[in-house]
Amino acid sequence: MSLFSPYASADPSDLENLGVDWVIQYEFGDIDIAQAIDEFRTLIHDLEEAHCLTQVRHGYGASLLVCIHVPREHLGNMVYKSRVKDWLYGISHELPVGDDYTVVDAETPAEALRSVYHVVTWAKSLGGAGITPGLGQWERVTACTPLHDQAINASLLKKMSRRMKLTEEDLDTIRALFGEKVAFYFAFFHCYNSFILFAACWGIFSWAYLGPYSVACALVNCFWFIVFVEYWKIRQTDLAVRWNVQGVGVLKVNRPEYVWDRQVRDPITNEMVHVFSPTRQFVRQLLLIPFATVAALALGTLIVVTFALEIFISEIYTGPLKGYLEFLPTVIFSLSLPSISNLLSSIATRMTDYENYRTQDQYDVAQTAKTFIMRFITAFLPTVLTAFVYVPFGARLMPYLQISRIASLAKSIDTSKIHIDPSRLQQEVIYLSMTGQVLSFGEEVVLPYVKRVLRQKWRDYRQKQIRPSHSRQFSRYTDQLMIDSPDEAAFLTRIRNEVEGDEYNVHDDIIEMCEQYGYMALFGVAWPLMSVGFLINNWFEVRGDFFKLSLECQRPPPIRSDSIGPSMQGLELLTWTGILSTSAIVYLYRNGMEQVQLSSFFLTIIAAEWAYLAVRFAVRIGLQKMAMRTLRQESSRRYAVRKSFLEAVSGSSSPKSKLRVRFQDRVSVYSTSEDVRSGSEEFLHESQDGSPREKRFWAASEQGSADAGIRLIKALSVCEQPKSGKKEKGA
Amino acid sequence: MSLFSPYASADPSDLENLGVDWVIQYEFGDIDIAQAIDEFRTLIHDLEEAHCLTQVRHGYGASLLVCIHVPREHLGNMVYKSRVKDWLYGISHELPVGDDYTVVDAETPAEALRSVYHVVTWAKSLGGAGITPGLGQWERVTACTPLHDQAINASLLKKMSRRMKLTEEDLDTIRALFGEKVAFYFAFFHCYNSFILFAACWGIFSWAYLGPYSVACALVNCFWFIVFVEYWKIRQTDLAVRWNVQGVGVLKVNRPEYVWDRQVRDPITNEMVHVFSPTRQFVRQLLLIPFATVAALALGTLIVVTFALEIFISEIYTGPLKGYLEFLPTVIFSLSLPSISNLLSSIATRMTDYENYRTQDQYDVAQTAKTFIMRFITAFLPTVLTAFVYVPFGARLMPYLQISRIASLAKSIDTSKIHIDPSRLQQEVIYLSMTGQVLSFGEEVVLPYVKRVLRQKWRDYRQKQIRPSHSRQFSRYTDQLMIDSPDEAAFLTRIRNEVEGDEYNVHDDIIEMCEQYGYMALFGVAWPLMSVGFLINNWFEVRGDFFKLSLECQRPPPIRSDSIGPSMQGLELLTWTGILSTSAIVYLYRNGMEQVQLSSFFLTIIAAEWAYLAVRFAVRIGLQKMAMRTLRQESSRRYAVRKSFLEAVSGSSSPKSKLRVRFQDRVSVYSTSEDVRSGSEEFLHESQDGSPREKRFWAASEQGSADAGIRLIKALSVCEQPKSGKKEKGA
Repeated sequence: MSLFSPYASADPSDLENLGVDWVIQYEFGDIDIAQAIDEFRTLIHDLEEAHCLTQVRHGYGASLLVCIHVPREHLGNMVYKSRVKDWLYGISHELPVGDDYTVVDAETPAEALRSVYHVVTWAKSLGGAGITPGLGQWERVTACTPLHDQAINASLLKKMSRRMKLTEEDLDTIRALFGEKVAFYFAFFHCYNSFILFAACWGIFSWAYLGPYSVACALVNCFWFIVFVEYWKIRQTDLAVRWNVQGVGVLKVNRPEYVWDRQVRDPITNEMVHVFSPTRQFVRQLLLIPFATVAALALGTLIVVTFALEIFISEIYTGPLKGYLEFLPTVIFSLSLPSISNLLSSIATRMTDYENYRTQDQYDVAQTAKTFIMRFITAFLPTVLTAFVYVPFGARLMPYLQISRIASLAKSIDTSKIHIDPSRLQQEVIYLSMTGQVLSFGEEVVLPYVKRVLRQKWRDYRQKQIRPSHSRQFSRYTDQLMIDSPDEAAFLTRIRNEVEGDEYNVHDDIIEMCEQYGYMALFGVAWPLMSVGFLINNWFEVRGDFFKLSLECQRPPPIRSDSIGPSMQGLELLTWTGILSTSAIVYLYRNGMEQVQLSSFFLTIIAAEWAYLAVRFAVRIGLQKMAMRTLRQESSRRYAVRKSFLEAVSGSSSPKSKLRVRFQDRVSVYSTSEDVRSGSEEFLHESQDGSPREKRFWAASEQGSADAGIRLIKALSVCEQPKSGKKEKGA
Repeated sequence: MSLFSPYASADPSDLENLGVDWVIQYEFGDIDIAQAIDEFRTLIHDLEEAHCLTQVRHGYGASLLVCIHVPREHLGNMVYKSRVKDWLYGISHELPVGDDYTVVDAETPAEALRSVYHVVTWAKSLGGAGITPGLGQWERVTACTPLHDQAINASLLKKMSRRMKLTEEDLDTIRALFGEKVAFYFAFFHCYNSFILFAACWGIFSWAYLGPYSVACALVNCFWFIVFVEYWKIRQTDLAVRWNVQGVGVLKVNRPEYVWDRQVRDPITNEMVHVFSPTRQFVRQLLLIPFATVAALALGTLIVVTFALEIFISEIYTGPLKGYLEFLPTVIFSLSLPSISNLLSSIATRMTDYENYRTQDQYDVAQTAKTFIMRFITAFLPTVLTAFVYVPFGARLMPYLQISRIASLAKSIDTSKIHIDPSRLQQEVIYLSMTGQVLSFGEEVVLPYVKRVLRQKWRDYRQKQIRPSHSRQFSRYTDQLMIDSPDEAAFLTRIRNEVEGDEYNVHDDIIEMCEQYGYMALFGVAWPLMSVGFLINNWFEVRGDFFKLSLECQRPPPIRSDSIGPSMQGLELLTWTGILSTSAIVYLYRNGMEQVQLSSFFLTIIAAEWAYLAVRFAVRIGLQKMAMRTLRQESSRRYAVRKSFLEAVSGSSSPKSKLRVRFQDRVSVYSTSEDVRSGSEEFLHESQDGSPREKRFWAASEQGSADAGIRLIKALSVCEQPKSGKKEKGA
């Protein structure tokens, strides 16, 4: 079973989902049977009340799998209602035709699944079953996921392994399978890869002809970063319009965890709205400041200490075991990093919970922003320290390290002799960027895969050992349940494995890409080939991510979104700091740390920043001009819809005949100049409440205005130009 | 007749407009009578074809006045059609009810006048009369304007002279009278004044306790600039929503001067669109670069030369007449500036014409941007030179001035003795800011007023001299036309004067305010009382502007707009440069030019810039959170409209009874858990094309899912937890 053709051996009929829309896993290992029975009965009852058909099978261990099917008629109605809601909130401009009982076909599997998702998870008041996995009453619902469409996944993965490019159709397919949120990630990834392709070509060129720290290389790179970010912004809007999800954030329902202060009736829509005081939320958000400070300090200190230790050992220490000790700090740091990150993450999650956001979207934004900050500190701080502290100031800082001389480990050295090699930055950049990518790929794709395969093997082994002996005892009324019918066995194994998978978090993948982009933006100039390395890595990464999404994780509920979320701000921030950092690195390292003046260093940074702002402005305007097309199409489409609607409405309801005649009659009264007199009468008739002066004014000339004017022209031309008086007489 | 109560003496009945909606002035002094008669006949014909009623009176000199009245019925229909168009293009969300012949009342005088404006000026193909003042066929139409509503103008001016604040109602009144474009200017002015009120209080405090160049003063000011600009942005959106003009730019018609390359049929709306190649337009826009360079160089050189001469004379020259010569360069510069500005403006206008914009809005944006740049160079460059070149580097630059020593005029001086007084900056700032405001007020309001009064006097005098003698000759058939009937005399005099007024250009007034804001942002820290001076000036200015608008200028056509236009970008740019300039001035001047280091100077600027970006981000987020209300109201309103529409539609057309029963029947099938079996049958029935395996899967359990699950729970709890097997038996 190769990594990229995992379906090759499968019997096509095993790929079918047997009409199962959704699967819920209910685990009851830790509670009393009576309670489990109670809970399970409620679960089934709630699902059936929400019009779901259910089938129960046993899962791994003490768990049950509830297979859910929503009858097409009900589902079609849910889809229709969801479309009406889209229209109500202004997401789509086309009012779907129908009434309360209309049934429509979903356009994509994702649209159908979204409605199933709503049926299963929405609160009962909204017409759902109110199943909230892992929360409150449903704490023991440990998974709640749709089933993968294995056939399409397989064909898509096959297609991707053969070609470099994701076409527009591939993106549409991903959207149709996994919803817009995931599709936006792949679209972003693809856009980023096209961008990096150029960067890689330019990187090879600059490596061959310009060398590291070249000004030309830096300028082209920086320009390219700006173009990429601005282009992606437009592309994102474009896709949002294409996928009809613009502004979709407004219609998200409340999170089940959301706690509101009071209910308010919206004066305009006359509906109840649950409100949590924004002031209180803001105060809670302020907690972010101490948290960020502490997190940054903790991580920063750790990194600085590791760094200092490493330098101390490699540069000053000459005792025994130097070769091994040199790596010790980094190893300790690397080992402790995951647990520190976990600790910080869990604090961050609790803070985000406490901030009490109304919708899952807002929650994700807040959570992602926190993750962003932490990830970037750990990813960039070491290199920042090397580039801007250690190499430039190392020679001056080194003596301070000696203060901590431990017993005889440090020998007394002549500080004036210390010369720190500027190429250290380059070495570190090469090492960190390349190993980082390989490690993260392994950690993200290979490791879970291996773990999963092993776990499955262990499960199978254990099941074989225990089940048969026990199930024989209960064969009387459970045998057909405890032992999978041969017909279903393969299918059920697949369900069980899918349900066991991790939840796919698209934000993590996006952040990983942003991290890569950030590394290139910040330090790319030190090693022009970096983009080549990233390009190769991404060739695997995009396939690995899709592999992970479609085989290792649960199928994510097809959630809609109109962007890649808060990472967009992250990208802009990274571009900005990237340009500052690039200019600073080029200035410092270009001449090997010679001729460095503080004032011209700062001047370089100011110039870089202003250039950034100016170029960004120009690029934005230029790209917007070029990309106006889609937006204009969008507005013309809206116009066309409204126009046809207007025609339909006015065509059916207007008592045309009568009115037209009446109005046309009136119009003809004024339309020829001979009848102006009667026009004046018309006016007089019309303004019955006008003053007598008004009437007199409009009744003044007995002939038409044209004649009156002509007489005036003749008269005036005599008054004003007495010389031309003769001409007039001649005429 | 005092400046602020010009209506005091007028008879109230003279303020009526006698039903005249619009006035056109036709001048024929420079052409043949026959041609004039032809043209005038066409004019009246075109107007009457567009359903206008007309009355002709003579104007001043060789001109005619055509008074236009659009019958209310036709006008009401135009208003209705304009509203439908708003809805079609998504400006308003409420579809007005009616058909092609519906007549509605205009909500405001401005709405009615806008439709009159359309009737008069739109192309014939759009249903107008196609009168394009001063252009092509209608070159001799020298004015085309609605009449002022003198009564309301007077009451509004009176109200304004008594109170400091413009209320929301006042703004609505201005909007109702002059349209949104003008109303936005007054709203901006008011917002700016409230902002400057705080700045003035803080200015007095800092002047008393902190002195000039204080860090605290600078920080508060800069923060306040950011708050102001971000607040105004939100306020602008807010007003655009309130006045229902958001995105109104899309439905503007083509300018009559617009030249298109080709006609394209829009594939979606299926309407003809006139296109001018964007590439060609872009190439033409590129001409801006040489223009801006030349303009900036020309102005800059002139200013630098003036400046150098002035310094040369005041600091080095000791010859005769020094006292007078000192002012000579500035006087020459000031005198030549208007003609240079005019030259540049006319070049700019021709460039904008050449750039060939489709709508008047786009044209205005391009033209205003050019004006902005030129105005700011002349306004700020002298002070920038003083602040950042002359005072800091003067001592070093002075010797170079001696190179140009002319004969014996310059004495040889000891350059080391030259010490340039840093207080010169403050003096210059005080002088320029205060005299500039007073002068511009005089130039803008008082001078035109005086000119107008004198011109009128001269007219009256001349008319009395010439007319009577001539008109006697034509008394036979023109006397009742040439001599105003006593009934109309006052009214006609008013029309004649209004028509003679200048066209009101709101962008000029906005730019003037931006200039003031810019001066404060850039140099305010040098003299904290500047804002106090501006506050006093603005007290007069707002009234002076309204006086000018309502008495000295033609009433502007009530054009819609959703913002103050390109000045918004100008404000942001000024804030940014203002903060850089403030930080630089504080750094340089705080200690009287001592202890200045280049590196820390640059560091200050970088810090200021970063602080600016961070604070702007925070303020933007904060204000948006606070101001979400209006936007939410807007979306709720849209929601409510759509909701009620949906109810109306579905209420009328759905064959409720039949469908509801059918669907309810089906629903009841699944809604109780006892009937799940039949639910499964339903599924089987539904998925007739499902595979046999699928059918078997869903038919598997003979009892309900709940029961099946419970049996499984019992079975599994034994398998997985053999210890708890006993418990189960006990239960």
